[in-house]
Amino acid sequence: MADTSFSFTLTHRDGRARCGVLTTPHGRIETPVFMPVGTQGSVKAMTQAQLVEAGAAIVLGNTYHLHLRPGEAAVARRGGLHRFIGWPHSILTDSGGYQVFSLSSRRRVGEDGVTFQSHLDGSRRFLSPENVAAIQAQLGSDIAMAFDECLSYPVEHDVARTSMERTLRWARRGREAFLRVMSGEASANPAEAGSRAREPVTVTTPGQVQFGIVQGSVFPDLREASARGTVEIGFDGYAIGGLSVGEPSAQMYEVAEYTAAWLPEDRPRYLMGAGTPLDLVEAVARGIDMFDCVMPTRNARNGQLFTRQGKLNIKNAAFAEDDRPPDEACGCYTCRTHSRAYLRHLFLAGEMTAATLNSIHNIQFYLDTMEAIRDSIVFGRFEAFRQALRQAWSPRPPDP
Amino acid sequence: MADTSFSFTLTHRDGRARCGVLTTPHGRIETPVFMPVGTQGSVKAMTQAQLVEAGAAIVLGNTYHLHLRPGEAAVARRGGLHRFIGWPHSILTDSGGYQVFSLSSRRRVGEDGVTFQSHLDGSRRFLSPENVAAIQAQLGSDIAMAFDECLSYPVEHDVARTSMERTLRWARRGREAFLRVMSGEASANPAEAGSRAREPVTVTTPGQVQFGIVQGSVFPDLREASARGTVEIGFDGYAIGGLSVGEPSAQMYEVAEYTAAWLPEDRPRYLMGAGTPLDLVEAVARGIDMFDCVMPTRNARNGQLFTRQGKLNIKNAAFAEDDRPPDEACGCYTCRTHSRAYLRHLFLAGEMTAATLNSIHNIQFYLDTMEAIRDSIVFGRFEAFRQALRQAWSPRPPDP
Repeated sequence: MADTSFSFTLTHRDGRARCGVLTTPHGRIETPVFMPVGTQGSVKAMTQAQLVEAGAAIVLGNTYHLHLRPGEAAVARRGGLHRFIGWPHSILTDSGGYQVFSLSSRRRVGEDGVTFQSHLDGSRRFLSPENVAAIQAQLGSDIAMAFDECLSYPVEHDVARTSMERTLRWARRGREAFLRVMSGEASANPAEAGSRAREPVTVTTPGQVQFGIVQGSVFPDLREASARGTVEIGFDGYAIGGLSVGEPSAQMYEVAEYTAAWLPEDRPRYLMGAGTPLDLVEAVARGIDMFDCVMPTRNARNGQLFTRQGKLNIKNAAFAEDDRPPDEACGCYTCRTHSRAYLRHLFLAGEMTAATLNSIHNIQFYLDTMEAIRDSIVFGRFEAFRQALRQAWSPRPPDP
Repeated sequence: MADTSFSFTLTHRDGRARCGVLTTPHGRIETPVFMPVGTQGSVKAMTQAQLVEAGAAIVLGNTYHLHLRPGEAAVARRGGLHRFIGWPHSILTDSGGYQVFSLSSRRRVGEDGVTFQSHLDGSRRFLSPENVAAIQAQLGSDIAMAFDECLSYPVEHDVARTSMERTLRWARRGREAFLRVMSGEASANPAEAGSRAREPVTVTTPGQVQFGIVQGSVFPDLREASARGTVEIGFDGYAIGGLSVGEPSAQMYEVAEYTAAWLPEDRPRYLMGAGTPLDLVEAVARGIDMFDCVMPTRNARNGQLFTRQGKLNIKNAAFAEDDRPPDEACGCYTCRTHSRAYLRHLFLAGEMTAATLNSIHNIQFYLDTMEAIRDSIVFGRFEAFRQALRQAWSPRPPDP
């Protein structure tokens, strides 16, 4: 099962922060990396060309959403997710764990998996470690995530322990299912009904790899047990799940720090769902390599722009006559072409293009921030960059 | 008042169909031309770069909308509409006549102009031939339209006559106001309150020209009187207004035909608000040079794509597994990158990007159609092209 396409090589270190190169069947990714979220096969309000121009090397797709619509079988018949969505670079698909616990109604968690009602049509669905691996093999992402249970915050220690232990058992089953599917063994696919259940799963990206997810809420003993158990199973990379779910930032940083310490040095570490620009730099400082978050695109649609001087609410009357671009140091299409005054006008006028232009800028800001982080690590100046970013993003009177 | 930037030169004829080159302070436009509609300073769901890539040489902005928000004074302080919206090519602004009669509530038409309530905040507003000229001078479009009264369809002959005669009186006042404003004479601007009313109007595009609008509903005698009267006043180009408001296509073609015949050969003729691809070719056959219509972008947002084989409703289940682009003969970004299956998925998933990708394609289709029309005129094959388009667009079973 050795995969010759996938590799992760650390190239530079500065304290615990690290730079590396991750290669997948669809390209080369410099880490630390931010992955824009393309929930339903589209980063909201952006075209793939706009993402390529921004320099995105990898995007995230949501297994839960794509399973419900258009369905993994339809995607596989199109040749996999890359072809279906017209995205030439890498894709990571999440496990569905987060969505099934936050979006679906009447879910029932059993040892086998989770039965739930689709948020789209109320149909009864089932996700398990096995079929989540099979679904992702058909989607053909470059990086698949093992199925996990994502808890809300706060949660009692004994509830977190029970859940974490189940996630560990699911991780083992998910890993075995992934290896079976990728080796081409005829594999049951409970996500499909009838005779198809005995057909082999279509693997649309043969070099796909799988990451495990460490859970355990904010409890060090549980995080340690989860990390040790997940690493023992053996994955191509490791994610820290169950954070960025409402806990204070300081606590997220603390958990990321001690959890990362239990993960192997030579595998990528992915902090799921984080975060603000400050979260990114603080997590990199603790040895994290990969991030995803809806914040840049969601906030863009709400008129909030990220800049090197902090956040900017484009609705603000102060921008009505402001001819400057959102961020004078930014080279994105929006900043090259448009003023704050125009972006404010489009937003107030309810023009869809406001969402597009704001998203282009915010994604560029996140990708530029990651590039600046990488450069600072390469040149041994990460700590100085971190302090500068902290200062720019600490609470203060809004710009201008 | 001779304007050295503006010119219109006929280059080819085929029957009554004609090709020409229209130059404005912001570029060169080959006619017959289609102008995408950028109501509030943005062609809905598209960026200016996407419009440039599609080959748009001129877009339309709505005086009514831009007057209400952000207001012509704010636009003038930004250096005019081109700078404000980041659009380097030509802009035509309509007169506000159509919107004031279709969008605003509690309007009162008097000899002076129209008093109405803003559809945005209910504020009391006034548009007149004079201030519409002043507003457009501040917006700085390349082509301004004289203020007219646009009637609904059907309407009685005597109502149409009364209205047409007022539009003619307004045309004379609008022309005089335009010439005063462009010559830099201090000009009252009733759209502004207080002392500003006596300040000279800021002209943001000194080479702006003005077109008159022929009205008269579907009555040949009124159209003739309107055309003669408007031409007698003398404008840089002439529009046929009051069509594409609900009358049958055949009647629109008929009115366009006899009205165009009363307009001077050496000035551009603009059929306002039309239409379908069939309308465009039929109007070109009758000597029309310029068009605008929301159809390509509005239908795109509703999932309707224009193709060389006719219309295609992307929602249709038949496209769920269709890997072909919307139109195999189209070279737009959407057709180069995406399948019908993906576009259907995005539309059903409610992704904004569906509107963007569909709009890119439909605008390209309209611009390609105009290019094909121009080529067919140049090569003396217009009639064959017209028949082919008629055949493709005649009612028949939907594709595929």
